[in-house]
This record gives sequence, C-alpha cells and structure tokens, in this order.
Amino acid sequence: MNSFGRIFSVHIFGESHGESVGIVIDGCPAGLVLSDADMLPDLERRKGGKQKGTTPRQEADYPLIKSGVFNGKTTGAPITIFFENNNIRSSDYEKQRSFPRPGHADMVAHQKYGGHEDYRGGGHFSARLTTGLVAAGAIAKKLMPGVSIHAAVTEIGGEADLDIGLQRAIDAKDSVGGIVECRVNGLPASLGEPFFDSAESIIAHIVFAIPAVKGIEFGSGFAASKMFGTEHNDAIENMEGRTRTNHAGGIVGGITNGNELIFRISIKPTASTPKEQNSLNWETGQTEDFSIKGRHDLCVALRAPVILEAATALALIDLMMMEQRVRRIV
Amino acid sequence: MNSFGRIFSVHIFGESHGESVGIVIDGCPAGLVLSDADMLPDLERRKGGKQKGTTPRQEADYPLIKSGVFNGKTTGAPITIFFENNNIRSSDYEKQRSFPRPGHADMVAHQKYGGHEDYRGGGHFSARLTTGLVAAGAIAKKLMPGVSIHAAVTEIGGEADLDIGLQRAIDAKDSVGGIVECRVNGLPASLGEPFFDSAESIIAHIVFAIPAVKGIEFGSGFAASKMFGTEHNDAIENMEGRTRTNHAGGIVGGITNGNELIFRISIKPTASTPKEQNSLNWETGQTEDFSIKGRHDLCVALRAPVILEAATALALIDLMMMEQRVRRIV
Amino acid sequence: MNSFGRIFSVHIFGESHGESVGIVIDGCPAGLVLSDADMLPDLERRKGGKQKGTTPRQEADYPLIKSGVFNGKTTGAPITIFFENNNIRSSDYEKQRSFPRPGHADMVAHQKYGGHEDYRGGGHFSARLTTGLVAAGAIAKKLMPGVSIHAAVTEIGGEADLDIGLQRAIDAKDSVGGIVECRVNGLPASLGEPFFDSAESIIAHIVFAIPAVKGIEFGSGFAASKMFGTEHNDAIENMEGRTRTNHAGGIVGGITNGNELIFRISIKPTASTPKEQNSLNWETGQTEDFSIKGRHDLCVALRAPVILEAATALALIDLMMMEQRVRRIV
Amino acid sequence: MNSFGRIFSVHIFGESHGESVGIVIDGCPAGLVLSDADMLPDLERRKGGKQKGTTPRQEADYPLIKSGVFNGKTTGAPITIFFENNNIRSSDYEKQRSFPRPGHADMVAHQKYGGHEDYRGGGHFSARLTTGLVAAGAIAKKLMPGVSIHAAVTEIGGEADLDIGLQRAIDAKDSVGGIVECRVNGLPASLGEPFFDSAESIIAHIVFAIPAVKGIEFGSGFAASKMFGTEHNDAIENMEGRTRTNHAGGIVGGITNGNELIFRISIKPTASTPKEQNSLNWETGQTEDFSIKGRHDLCVALRAPVILEAATALALIDLMMMEQRVRRIV
Repeated sequence: MNSFGRIFSVHIFGESHGESVGIVIDGCPAGLVLSDADMLPDLERRKGGKQKGTTPRQEADYPLIKSGVFNGKTTGAPITIFFENNNIRSSDYEKQRSFPRPGHADMVAHQKYGGHEDYRGGGHFSARLTTGLVAAGAIAKKLMPGVSIHAAVTEIGGEADLDIGLQRAIDAKDSVGGIVECRVNGLPASLGEPFFDSAESIIAHIVFAIPAVKGIEFGSGFAASKMFGTEHNDAIENMEGRTRTNHAGGIVGGITNGNELIFRISIKPTASTPKEQNSLNWETGQTEDFSIKGRHDLCVALRAPVILEAATALALIDLMMMEQRVRRIV
Repeated sequence: MNSFGRIFSVHIFGESHGESVGIVIDGCPAGLVLSDADMLPDLERRKGGKQKGTTPRQEADYPLIKSGVFNGKTTGAPITIFFENNNIRSSDYEKQRSFPRPGHADMVAHQKYGGHEDYRGGGHFSARLTTGLVAAGAIAKKLMPGVSIHAAVTEIGGEADLDIGLQRAIDAKDSVGGIVECRVNGLPASLGEPFFDSAESIIAHIVFAIPAVKGIEFGSGFAASKMFGTEHNDAIENMEGRTRTNHAGGIVGGITNGNELIFRISIKPTASTPKEQNSLNWETGQTEDFSIKGRHDLCVALRAPVILEAATALALIDLMMMEQRVRRIV
Repeated sequence: MNSFGRIFSVHIFGESHGESVGIVIDGCPAGLVLSDADMLPDLERRKGGKQKGTTPRQEADYPLIKSGVFNGKTTGAPITIFFENNNIRSSDYEKQRSFPRPGHADMVAHQKYGGHEDYRGGGHFSARLTTGLVAAGAIAKKLMPGVSIHAAVTEIGGEADLDIGLQRAIDAKDSVGGIVECRVNGLPASLGEPFFDSAESIIAHIVFAIPAVKGIEFGSGFAASKMFGTEHNDAIENMEGRTRTNHAGGIVGGITNGNELIFRISIKPTASTPKEQNSLNWETGQTEDFSIKGRHDLCVALRAPVILEAATALALIDLMMMEQRVRRIV
Repeated sequence: MNSFGRIFSVHIFGESHGESVGIVIDGCPAGLVLSDADMLPDLERRKGGKQKGTTPRQEADYPLIKSGVFNGKTTGAPITIFFENNNIRSSDYEKQRSFPRPGHADMVAHQKYGGHEDYRGGGHFSARLTTGLVAAGAIAKKLMPGVSIHAAVTEIGGEADLDIGLQRAIDAKDSVGGIVECRVNGLPASLGEPFFDSAESIIAHIVFAIPAVKGIEFGSGFAASKMFGTEHNDAIENMEGRTRTNHAGGIVGGITNGNELIFRISIKPTASTPKEQNSLNWETGQTEDFSIKGRHDLCVALRAPVILEAATALALIDLMMMEQRVRRIV
C-alpha cells in the first residue's frame, strides 16, 4: 500500500519523529552512475527555512545510500535510501495531543490504526516522507536524460504575483494555499493505456499521495468544461502529431501525444495555521479554542514544486518502462 | 493494464464496433443476489438518445451474465458480463479515416499500436466500453447497501442552468463541456492509505479512465488554493470525527473521515463536434478542412453521472475490502 | 485472484457446466497475426476422448475471439476468447451431490463460498477452464518464435512404459497418476529476478494452478538433495554460459542461464475413480460407501502436456516482457 | 520484483558485502506488540557456525527496527528492519573473481546486469538476505497465534539419519544436499484461490525465492504420480472436512481444507564446495581447474528450516488477510 509503480517501483517508509524516513527503489536499470550528489540539488530545493513562508525546521536531509549501488553505479538490485531524523522537537506535539488538529490526519489516523499510530509530527503522514520521494525522483530524472520536468508555483492565495499572495498571509498571520504547475518536455508519444492506466490516471494516482493536494487538472482542465468543441480541439499539424494548440495538455485518450505535458495541482493552506482554532478536545469530548504549536510552513505550495517533479518523474519512468522506452541496462 | 482493483478487481475488454464489449469482475463475495435486472436501471441511465444533446445511437445494452452467477446468486468465481454490439454503422468511420480526428485517440492509437488498432468508432477507446463499467458499478453498489453514491451534472458550458448551457451549444451547432459532481454518504472512516494509495489517489486513478475527464477536485479543490488555513480547516465537532464544515470533501491525509465524500470532475466538450475543423489529412500529410460524420453526443457530460458513480463505486468497494469492511461471503 | 502476469496478463473465468468458459488476455503486443486456427492444434491436443484413459466428454472447444483482433491481427487491446459449453450432463452431478467427492474441491468450495458455489462438474474448479489457458498459451508461443516448449508424459503409475502404466490402471478399474516433463529450448539468459520473482517462482506459481499438480522440480530436482556439490555443479564451458551438464535445469540464482530449461511435475490420480469409495455423506453426516458417476479421465496426466506447455508459455512471455525481450508492437 | 504479498507485503534489499541487508514490511496490522526480542530466536536459528556443516561466518544479525513501531507496538505504517554487515572478508571473493563459480549466480548476474552487479559474496543473490525474510516471518508468525509452523531437515544426502548423511560429506570433503519438510497446524480452511493464486502457487512462489531450492511437493507429492485414485483420495470423515488420510497435504483444488498442511523441498548441495572444480576462466575464456575460497556451509539444508518457516508464514499471513482471517487492528 505504501508502494508505487509496476516495473520501476518505490516503497516508502518512516515517521516524522521516528528514527528515520526513507525509500526502497526497485527496478532501476543497472549501470546508472549514481551517488548522493545526484540527489542533493533536488533535496536542497525541498528544504524549508530558506525562504519566507517555509518551516524553520532544518534537517540535514542527507541521503544515505544503503544498497543497490556498487563502484559508483546502480547494480540492478533495489536501492535503499535513508534519511536520519535528527532535528526533532516532539515535545511540541505531546503538549497539544489532546486536540486532533483540524485539517491534519490526527483523527483519521487514530480511527484507522486504533490509537496505535505514531502521532508525533504527523508520524507516517508527515510531509517529511517526501524526502524519499524527492530522492527517488532524482534517480528517475537521470534515467530520462531527454525529458525535462519543471514545476513552479503559479499562484499563492489566488494571486499570480506570489509575493503579494504570500504577504497577504503573513499580514493575516494565517497559512495560505497555492497552485503549482508542472510542464514536461521531450516526452515520447504512446505512454499510458486506454483504460484504467491512462497517463492521467497514473500521474494523478501518485500526485494525490503528496500531502495537501486537493485537485489536479490536465491541459485546459476545469476550463474545458466551459468550452465548445471547436475551441477545445487541438488541430493536428504534422505526421508526428504536433498540435496547433495544447488544450489536451499532452494526453489524448489516456495516451501521451508527444506534445508538452501540462498539468496543475491545487495545494490547500497548511493545516497548521498559527491562528487560534476551535475544535474537538479528545479529553473533554467538547470543542474548545486552542493554538497549534510546532514549526510549520505558512504556504506548503512553496515547497511543492520539487516534490511534484519527483512524483511526475516516478509516474513517467514507470510508464516509459512499461512501454519499453528505457533499457534494463543503461 | 485494462484492470483495476486489488481485491475487487475488474478487467475490461471490447471495441466500439467489434463483436462485443464487456467486463470480468473478480473478487466479488459469494452469495450476493444478482441478475441482469440489478444492472438495467444504471445501464438505462447511461444510454444516449433519451435526452437532448446525447447520441441517437441506440444499443440494447443488455447485460449477458456469462459466468459467476448460479441459482440467482454470485458464486465467488469471476463474473463475466457481455454486451453485444448490434447497432453499428462503421461506414461513417471508414469515410473519414484519412483524418485523425482532433481531440480523439485516432492519432495516439495509431502511434502506440503501429497502425494495428481497431479504429472503427474509437475501437477500444470508445465510451461504449463504459457499459461494462456501469454494470460492474451496479454490483459494487449492491455490496455497499448503506452507502449512497449520487452524481449529477452541475454545469454545462460554464452555466449552472443546464438548459441554458445546452441551448448555447445547440445554437452554436457545437459540442460543449460540463462539470459533474459526485457525493457519497454513509461511507465509513478509515478507507485509504497515507502514501500512494490515498483514497483520492484510488478514486482519481479510475476516474481518469472515463473518457473526456480533464480534471478532478476533492472538497474545496481548486478553491482551496485561494484560501487561508483558518477558512479551510474543518473544525471537528465530536468523537466520531464529524466536522463543522467539509472543505476536505471527506478525505484527510488520504483517509476517509466519515463525512460526506464530495468531488467534482471536468468533462471536456465532445471531440466530435458537428462543425467543420482544420487538421491533418494522413493521406496528404497536409492540414485541411473536414467535417466529422457519425452519431455523437453534443455534451458527453450529460451521460457521465452514472459512469462516474460506477467508477466511484469500484474504487470504494476495493477500498472497503482492503479495509475488511465487506465480508467475503455475503 | 484469477489473474496471472504483470505485463502479459491473463484473466480466467467460467464454470464447467455454466454457459461458457474463457479468458481475457491483456498486454499482447499489437500486430500479431492471429486467428482461431492458431489455437486449434493445441486445443485439439487438450481434448479428451481421443486416446485410452481420457474422458469421453467431447466439447467442440472452439475458440470464439470476441475482442482484440482486427483485420486478422492483434490490436494491442485485450483479447477475449470464449468457449461455449454445449455437451453438458449435469444430472450426473445432481444425483451424487450428497457426497463431497474425496480429492475434489467440493468440500473446500462449499466452505470457502458458503454453499453458493456452482458445484456442477466442479464449477469454476473444473479442468475445463484450462481451455482458456491453452488458447492463451498458443498466443504466447506465437510471440516467442525462437523458443520451443515441449512437454510430454514420462511416467504413468510409476512406469516409464506408459502403456504398461495405463493398462495396470485399466485392469485395476482405478484412476492413476503420472509425471510430465517440460523442456524449453531457445530461451534467452537473464529472465527472472533474484528474490521472490525467480524464474522458478513464476513458473511454479502458474503450474500449481493446473488442477491435480502435487509437485514440481527443476533440473535434478529432488535428486539434488542426494548429491554432492561436485556432482551437482554444472561446469561453465564458454563465455555465453553454456554448461557441461544441466543439473540446474537452466535456472541459477532464480535467473535463466541460456541452457535448456527442464522441469517435471507430479500429477495425482484423477480424483473421480470408478471404484467405490467410503466418505462423508453431507445429508446424513456419516461416512458411507458410494460411487462416482459422470465421465472422467482415468489418467489426467495424459492431457496435461499441452496445458503445461501453455502455463509455461504464459510464465515465460511475461518474464520476457519484463526483461524487454518482446517488443510492444510485433 | 523484490516484493511479495498483496496485503501483507514485503520488500527485500541489500547485498552480502554491502553496507546492510534488510526488509520493509507493509500491511502489518496496527497494535501488535513487537520488539527485536520477537525476532531474535528465529534469527539465532538461522545463524551458521553453531553446528557442524554450517559456515563459520558470524554476523551479529541484530535486527534494527527503523520504522513502524512506536511505544512497543506496530503502528500500521511500514516496518523497516535493518541488519548491518560487519563481518566481511571480501578479499576472498576478489581473488577468485576470474572464475564465475559453477552453481552460483555469478554468470547469470553478469549477463543480466551487464557487469554492474555487486559480485562480492554473491551480492544481492546471497543467502544473507534471508535474515530479512526470517525477521518478517517472525512477525507473520506473531499475527497467527493459533497457527504452528514447524520445518525440519528430514534427509541429508539421501540419508534419513542426518549425522550419517553429513559425515559422508565431511569425509568426502564435499558439500551435500538435503530435504526439508514443513508442517503447519491450526490453519483454517478456505485459504487460496481456484486459479493462479492457489495456496500451493503462493507457497511455491515464495519458497523458490529461497536460494538452493530445486523442488517442492505437497502431501504425497511425487509419490502421487505412482498411485491409484483409491489409494490417493483422502476420505472425508466429518462435516468440518477432516480427512482419514492426508495425501493432499492439506490443500485440495488450490484451497486449504483445514487438515495439516505438509510439504517438502529439495535443497541442492552448496555450490561452494571445498573441492577443486573445472570451469570457465573469464580472463582466459578457457575452462581451468580452480578452488573456491571463502567461508561456506557444507550443507545449506541445515540452515533452511527457519527460512522455510518464514517464507511459509509470509505466504500464509497474506492468504489469511486476503480471506479476512486477520484483523487490520490487532
């Protein structure tokens, strides 16, 4: 259940305030030059604390390669990547344990796991687990050298001017949501299947594993619902299938068509707002006012682009391998 | 690849103008009272030709149960459901075969299958395959008697007044898109997994298998990106996890929280618009003006609700069985 | 659960005395020339009634291709193959329904499906379902033109002289078991995975789906347990990995080594012996003497070779596709 | 590919002389009391060096629980178990690298991974990876308190008197094979599926992942091929399905029948015999005489019982969870 992918498959594990988080990557072709250095740039992008609106929690986020690499290259055996959790302040969480935090997984985790869940810092639900995702994504990107995946925040709090959007939240002393767009170029046509495993299905599946995502749209997306057919249809211009417009966002009938892949996701405001909230107290069984402690991002959308790129890379490399577009030995 | 589900799994097959379409349903508990009559109401809803804006093609759409039912009950063995294709006019398609239809899968199918695809009426990509989905969905619904799944068109062409939206398209002699919303009540908490197999992931995966879907959003969805945390967070009101508001749409941290599940999808305008289009002619290698022949829906969103309900039911029954909420013998 | 294969996957359905049996084959490359004629020779081999010791039940066993083939070639979409059940005499089974037949699935099916199983002729447990397997195997064989798969009965009732073995059973008016050996030549090295998905694992998995199989051994098999290392080790003779002996049976470390693949299976005697038996009567709750009615094989091992070849072909084609040894478009 | 199980699933990783080996266990119910102490007894049984005929290599084999356990109980999140490799003498292997060792995976690994494999000590193919299997098996056993799984060596070198069998090999200065039998009591009926996922299929699948296994037989196994039906059939004695004899080994029609589950495996002689061998030298391309260095078991069958128990436990717990016989919260 904590796995994704049919040939290039990943298995995620760990807890925010446990000993470690990490990922096992299976199905990676042998012979790929790989070291921690290949993952550090994307891991650096994922870190908070570097920009306004992100958490001051600072982890080394150093990827320890525990298996699958020998003499500087992948061996074809599973690659295990570990991240140690060092910078932990669980006491913040113990104090407010009586309130299942609204917008967080506290309540559902409690129900699903019968109270046995590791609740500290969100436990297994924490965005900290996306370190493994980002590390695996960096490997997937290396396997597709001709494919460029680029994600960026396009809106914060409804504002295309991100600084304005963020400042509004800072002024309101509240957290805020945003939009992240992902564009992929150099992708071959023919990826995806007509039923159940459409390219959109596979991408959406993994994208909704990213915490805080509430929506995804491909190409014209929700705007397509307002359009006429002649507006929306992308005229085909040549025998390779290049289209004049790209309302489809690069996928038709569930299959990539060789044009730019474009999709957007909606990220909800960080659940841990600094503002006072009114919600259930588990101890009293009553709703009460309380405030969230701990170190949190004001706008998690700001940290989402590199995570979205990684998720996209994992979806695409598996689609590529299903379609035999990546060799088993590099 | 044409399969969905881990315990309750379905395998779809067939082509629009081939001999038949159908579905194999595996993992259905034994002892469920089942006959064709259980599927007919939803299949009737799926049919076109009954309302303005839908295709005049009329199939009997009669579900032939070929295996898995004995003495009026499911046996625990795979259930096979067949639909014969009788009302076929392939000649329409042969005539326009020189133009890969914009917005259709003609071009990607040709690339993916090397020209061997059955192109008649969209072949395996046709929305006709959703008959099997609807039949399987009807069975899934029967297995969850306390769960109500209801989908409805909420917008056509951007208009909440559906008649106005549709008339605009009829007047423009063009096809048009729409929004369909799905609401599920009576769903237990605890369905879904924190990573990769979140409830949103599983639902989105199958929903993007429905032809023409370009986006999906849960709860506040894309609007969440514009909100502050204190606006978006749903205060918890009691020990069962009932929330005051439902911006989450019934899913937090990837897990259902027992509140109403709400999501919306965007349906693009039917690719087969009656209007003249300019696009590639495969024979000349040039773009040319041409018109689509054949019988088509003006607004496929109108037929989508029952299909969306079926897809949702298939996602939910599998989540329920993974969580052991449905017995293996009814 | 009634599915096998990760890329080339099959989904089996039907009951012995239901309307039909069949199989859906997904992941077959597009462009393969295919018609019923390609399946008939193996289906003919599978039939009983042609030789001493096999059931007199005669089915047309005619494969109806219901999807996935267009203009005489596979399309890349799922291939559905149907066999109608015409020659049914269920009355034989109704009469003896009070006795769950020893060695048959009657009792376990009753326990597992709560009495809702289709018990006629073994229902979904019947060897009649192997028609679909054989049809799918014929397709898999066509996809590996350089690979030859050949199975043959090597022992009946412990006798290498099959006629003697069979005559002993006929004289005893009893059913009898046998050994079937399978040899595969032309198989490339590198198929299979070191853990969990070893080539032996994948082959054994599907082989134990064949009714009546009680054991499997690769290469020297059970004899290996009696050998010294210097006897058993196969010296490597050249850079391609050809070995001097073949005690490994063509698989080392879970991976094919390019030498002949050899394995044997043990087939138990047909459970439906014509002799009187003493076993539980469901109605009285007591053990009693009774006799099995119906038409049955005296030695099912005689019909097993073509089924074993088919199962082997399905395992190998999927291993080949996982290793990218078969193109997605033929 | 390095994964096993559908609900209770394990993912194995590591190399013999790499930094570590380990396993990720997903789908374990929450609330199970678990600490390293639960795994130590079985890990101790797996260790070599304690008895005649096993390798003098001594690892601490201490299971480091890296995730999934909190306050002494499982949380429902993936459990990661690490074993550090400390006691490594890779120099032995470097010296003999010019000879792909007969009976070992050296040659197939080289072919499959293009020379990028970690060849030291067998790398990812090493029996050292079974530490993870044994740890996971110990957890699976804890989840089935009423089920007892017991495996034992029943033959060495064809001798039922194990001391004689082993002494013959010691005298011959050669390695030797053996038979291991596994018996399971307390198992419920109804586990397994009629097609493809028969109980035998699932068990055989994982058993062939154990290094050196060349055959498996259930119940009467290969002896069944020599029997008449009236000899082999197990008469049913009561309404619960208890049988008078147990030639079936506890599985009929692919489904457990509630009687004792019995099966045997054949283990080939350790490939690393101390005797001189003649085989290919990669450097010269010629066959030459050479001897294997390194520390090895004379008879790996002696260490196999606890590994076989673990593999069996993993197969059974997944079958139990598929059949909803184990709760998601303990």
